[in-house]
Amino acid sequence: IIPSVTAADLSPIPDRALSAGLLVGKWPAGEREGVTFEFTEAPIGGAAIDATGSPLPEETLQICRDSDAVLLAAIGGYKWDQLPPEQRPERGLLNLRAGLGTFANLRPAVVLPHLADASTLKREVVEGVDIMIVRELVGGIYFGQPRGFTTNQEGERVGFNTMIYSEPEVERIAHVAFQLAQKRKGRLCSVEKSNVLEVSMLWKEVITRVGEQYPDIELSHMYVDNAAMQIIRNPKSFDTIVTGNIFGDILSDAASMLTGSLGMLPSASTSNDGPGIFEPVHGSAPDIAGQDIANPLAMVLSAAMMCRYGLSLPKVAEQLERAVTAALDAGYRTGDLHTPGMQKVGCSEMGDVLVDCM
Amino acid sequence: IIPSVTAADLSPIPDRALSAGLLVGKWPAGEREGVTFEFTEAPIGGAAIDATGSPLPEETLQICRDSDAVLLAAIGGYKWDQLPPEQRPERGLLNLRAGLGTFANLRPAVVLPHLADASTLKREVVEGVDIMIVRELVGGIYFGQPRGFTTNQEGERVGFNTMIYSEPEVERIAHVAFQLAQKRKGRLCSVEKSNVLEVSMLWKEVITRVGEQYPDIELSHMYVDNAAMQIIRNPKSFDTIVTGNIFGDILSDAASMLTGSLGMLPSASTSNDGPGIFEPVHGSAPDIAGQDIANPLAMVLSAAMMCRYGLSLPKVAEQLERAVTAALDAGYRTGDLHTPGMQKVGCSEMGDVLVDCM
Ligand SMILES: CC(C)[C@H](C(=O)O)[C@@H](O)C(=O)O
Ligand SMILES: CC(C)[C@H](C(=O)O)[C@@H](O)C(=O)O
Repeated sequence: IIPSVTAADLSPIPDRALSAGLLVGKWPAGEREGVTFEFTEAPIGGAAIDATGSPLPEETLQICRDSDAVLLAAIGGYKWDQLPPEQRPERGLLNLRAGLGTFANLRPAVVLPHLADASTLKREVVEGVDIMIVRELVGGIYFGQPRGFTTNQEGERVGFNTMIYSEPEVERIAHVAFQLAQKRKGRLCSVEKSNVLEVSMLWKEVITRVGEQYPDIELSHMYVDNAAMQIIRNPKSFDTIVTGNIFGDILSDAASMLTGSLGMLPSASTSNDGPGIFEPVHGSAPDIAGQDIANPLAMVLSAAMMCRYGLSLPKVAEQLERAVTAALDAGYRTGDLHTPGMQKVGCSEMGDVLVDCM
Repeated sequence: IIPSVTAADLSPIPDRALSAGLLVGKWPAGEREGVTFEFTEAPIGGAAIDATGSPLPEETLQICRDSDAVLLAAIGGYKWDQLPPEQRPERGLLNLRAGLGTFANLRPAVVLPHLADASTLKREVVEGVDIMIVRELVGGIYFGQPRGFTTNQEGERVGFNTMIYSEPEVERIAHVAFQLAQKRKGRLCSVEKSNVLEVSMLWKEVITRVGEQYPDIELSHMYVDNAAMQIIRNPKSFDTIVTGNIFGDILSDAASMLTGSLGMLPSASTSNDGPGIFEPVHGSAPDIAGQDIANPLAMVLSAAMMCRYGLSLPKVAEQLERAVTAALDAGYRTGDLHTPGMQKVGCSEMGDVLVDCM
């Protein structure tokens, strides 16, 4: 098996040194399972803007399409913040998601016992939390038409976007979520705002209908405001959550805080056929770029999700996940997670520890 | 001064007994300041649906318009959940907000020292939190046109809503927020999603421009996903927040969890002229209706906000707020806030305690 992986990449990525090192230079997890990875690096976001003027050059998209999976580093940074919307790094990410049709974004929020004290929530509230958020990623208000700026009947300038879902769009994400719930604890909570929005009424109706095909799954419905509250009040009450693009954006960031650090959280974005995108939930953290202090674990766990969900290499995924657990067991922590008594390490040092732990 | 107050009301309101008792029967806070209140009760939501078929009868809206302020109890309940959208209790609330043009929704999240342990967040994280969320209430995706259901070019059924803001809509809420920040710690954080949405780009641009008139205010901007995270990670970093309708809905519910109980949280919705709406953040809690165990403090604190922001009776407001603090000081708690060593009381009992504390 020679899966190829596109590490679509950008200069100011704190963990780039490590991800490159771990993945390209030494990739013991793969080696051990007899898998050789072939990497092609291609720019997206800031790096691509600097090189080509576009946040997603056609060539990068083509390289991604031709790969078996895309391992994506964080995009963005102060330098590009003032560009017009169409030219900003975020647009590169959105266009990549749309270009590959990766409609299902899986965002796990798992609280490892080692880190239950790192959260601002009480240990007893977060210990044992294991939530999987399934976010629709290529529809909803992110991509809805019409959008833009115009003048209304009163002659005032307005900005507007359209939150829209079609039945098939909801159906396909529903199937992903129900099937994932089957492999988990069998509970699925669909989050929307159907007491106010028509788009949410359709969402709820379709989820309910698809649910009839999954009688083994306990389906519930929750308004998004209540969900934001319950994630803080009683996170253990959730197993699998399915929701639209913007609600998923907000809720997954909130849920990430249960784990104490964004630096631990991987994500997977998959389609039904082509390559998936695997990336940390955290951003490029330009404030700490280049200091070799970032937490690389989210990137490593994203590589694990890539192996599991994108390349059907569950054993390689386990190797990577085991290495992360072993490094934490041994007391190694990057600065974001550091507590007294632990061994504080930098980003590339953590990479070495992981390799040793394998 | 004889302000009249419409207690737009609905049957299954847990705290109705108390609010009616406190406000109508004995209203010592007003009496002491030489103010007599004149109350008109009018149905909205479920009670109105049962009585008239409409969640906001024209007569109720007229009574509200003719009053100096509207003190609103929670709307909704299982009984009306299956009605078509236009006839549901929520619609009554939305139509009342729109009908009175109450565009500025103030939602404070204040952590009282007595209750710092009631939150699922660690005491040191929430102690001293004092956030004011200013939510735009009569625009955005809640009211944007076009909306509804249709068939797209592929012949698929779609549901859609429009998130839209005009410059004047953003300007007026901006002024409310900046002026409130002036009376607080002088910091205002505007929350949007301008890295993706045009409506948010306009929002940010207008807030920034209005900000030039308030050089004494420290203005910052934050994406909504990050805000959901920071409210959990470092809530003390916030003073005043200004945001749109749906983002405010989500964030204010999340922020409410800092305080440990929804039962403590009042809100005010004001326009530039007519009567404001004052209501607890919590819903009707049909699961505990009729048991006389609900926490009435959010309703009492809403009455306080009504006196302060709606009727220019700050001294009456203080009386009410002092009574709440005194009751908590004395160790009285309803079930939602009860901890060992405290004196557990029911809803109407808490009302008696408050009256005694005045
Ligand atoms: C960078 C931004 C466009 C993106 C999003 O909103 O989807 C990010 O917040 C995320 O969640 O991946
Ligand atoms: C009941 C519902 C329509 C309402 C809203 O979404 O505004 C509620 O959640 C609120 O926050 O006041």
